[in-house]
Amino acid sequence: MIIDCHGHYTTAPAPLWEWRKRQVAGQDPGPLKISDDEIRESLEKNQLRIQRERGTDLTFFSPRAGSMEHHVGDARMSEAWSRQCNDLIHRVCSLYPANFAPVCQLPQSPGVPPANCIPELERCVRELDFIGCNLNPDPSGGWWKSPPLGDRFWYPLYEKLAELEVPAMVHVSSSCNPAFHFTGAHYINADTTAFMQFITSDVFKDFPTLKFVIPHGGGAVPYHWGRYRGLAQDMGKPPLKDLLLRNVFFDTCVYHLPGIELLLKVIPAENILFASEIVGAVRGVDPETGHYYDDTRRYIDQVSWLGAAEREKIYVGNVSRVYPRFNRRRAA
Amino acid sequence: MIIDCHGHYTTAPAPLWEWRKRQVAGQDPGPLKISDDEIRESLEKNQLRIQRERGTDLTFFSPRAGSMEHHVGDARMSEAWSRQCNDLIHRVCSLYPANFAPVCQLPQSPGVPPANCIPELERCVRELDFIGCNLNPDPSGGWWKSPPLGDRFWYPLYEKLAELEVPAMVHVSSSCNPAFHFTGAHYINADTTAFMQFITSDVFKDFPTLKFVIPHGGGAVPYHWGRYRGLAQDMGKPPLKDLLLRNVFFDTCVYHLPGIELLLKVIPAENILFASEIVGAVRGVDPETGHYYDDTRRYIDQVSWLGAAEREKIYVGNVSRVYPRFNRRRAA
Repeated sequence: MIIDCHGHYTTAPAPLWEWRKRQVAGQDPGPLKISDDEIRESLEKNQLRIQRERGTDLTFFSPRAGSMEHHVGDARMSEAWSRQCNDLIHRVCSLYPANFAPVCQLPQSPGVPPANCIPELERCVRELDFIGCNLNPDPSGGWWKSPPLGDRFWYPLYEKLAELEVPAMVHVSSSCNPAFHFTGAHYINADTTAFMQFITSDVFKDFPTLKFVIPHGGGAVPYHWGRYRGLAQDMGKPPLKDLLLRNVFFDTCVYHLPGIELLLKVIPAENILFASEIVGAVRGVDPETGHYYDDTRRYIDQVSWLGAAEREKIYVGNVSRVYPRFNRRRAA
Repeated sequence: MIIDCHGHYTTAPAPLWEWRKRQVAGQDPGPLKISDDEIRESLEKNQLRIQRERGTDLTFFSPRAGSMEHHVGDARMSEAWSRQCNDLIHRVCSLYPANFAPVCQLPQSPGVPPANCIPELERCVRELDFIGCNLNPDPSGGWWKSPPLGDRFWYPLYEKLAELEVPAMVHVSSSCNPAFHFTGAHYINADTTAFMQFITSDVFKDFPTLKFVIPHGGGAVPYHWGRYRGLAQDMGKPPLKDLLLRNVFFDTCVYHLPGIELLLKVIPAENILFASEIVGAVRGVDPETGHYYDDTRRYIDQVSWLGAAEREKIYVGNVSRVYPRFNRRRAA
């Protein structure tokens, strides 16, 4: 079995985006009307087709990251939008329980204490059986105005995540800062930034069971693993393994073989979760291989020195530790 | 011969930092008094000792990056500070012409068109024989308020750089944004961000001879080379090789063997310049190897599949193309 821990509903039917347009324009957006058939069509020719073609089984599925747009409007707008998006994810996962498990968007808003996200998080987890959430470390959309993830600002939300046994994927949304291209700079920078924020924090002393997934292969972190080990050491911190690796995990959204090889060489297999982020940031075929850039399974399968036990952990085993609610959902 | 293209005067004698303190406090800082012996002492036990120990020959040497502090004060303060720092670098390189070649700090200031840097750049290059400069893509110090490097805002400076045949290392200074740890997040993010800004720009159509060095192994870029190739392709751009690699170079400040292996595997040897950034961000000994993290020569020498011709290019050969003024300086 192969579980992909990182997929967004980038192909959601047009009425969702039209609803959002009306909301942002300050109109009454009315009820969202999408039929089950529209949902099926949006998935059958995209994510479900790709799952079949690539031989993966189930995707952890959340709303489109670039459309979370926490920077647009206020916390109330963010909450109404998050509810719509999460309800749609719930419908997807109810229609295709063998193919998708739900991960929710949080109604964050710049400057608003993230405790405001607790009601929507509880609704998704307790009522709709969601197994994870996406946490945006920069709801200002590229201006980085929030306190770092080690700040107590975030703690009420962390308490709830720990209580619910829900991991958070650290995932920014689109960038309003012209300096940062969103999928080429903002996403990768956010991954790198979050990891460094964790190094300098006490989050995992205070929340020893809390778990974060850093997507896009951990940004720059595995490539600069020596730098991060050395920086932590210069600060008198314990080795990264002891400091973070019970709590921080990396996905495999790295779109070429040498990158995946580095990731698998440097980061313990216990801390790697398979992912491809389909249908996502990079959609083309690599002329050097004749295969899709984001077909990350192909890269992993090519790494001949990776043991069978490690491969199993990456493809499915680690999920049990990181997403305990997925096990219960699957059992039910 | 081994040339290290990336070193900062992090060990400059205390009077420099005291001068700066007075300047920032709004006092008349007076003349900077540092003796030749103080300069010698600051280098003999640090950079020169390390050059001897590691068997490298010459370092391209610029003022301490974290102290450029373009965000402090105004353009006039930035200019006076840059002059002091650059004059000190000139003295270092005059005392040890076989060991150091000078790279200047630019008197950038947030919101001020970078054309203001031209007089100091010309002074350094024409009068003091500097061979390169450091260009800060974010003089606001972590708030990223400048237009991206592809914007015409930067063009007057680019024109002068092209005219003078001076390459720029893209290097930020310290971070005032609590989200960004300076050497752990801000530096690496800036490298990644600059590369993506170049991808989406016409800079190298407009300045076909202009050259940039992206330090710290190119941030996240080589690790995500597939992502960047794919993003450029989705935008209808030519392959990165044709789009950027006549103009963009990466240094080798990557502090572990697997990272260096990835860099050498993914980026053509023609685009890699040896560097270690001593004495810099990471100062400890790696307990896994018993050697300094930043002893990057050791990693490169361990890569047995790297051909002799490629190694020569990385250690010394590429410098002739990227820093033409270094050749002339050496000849003189």
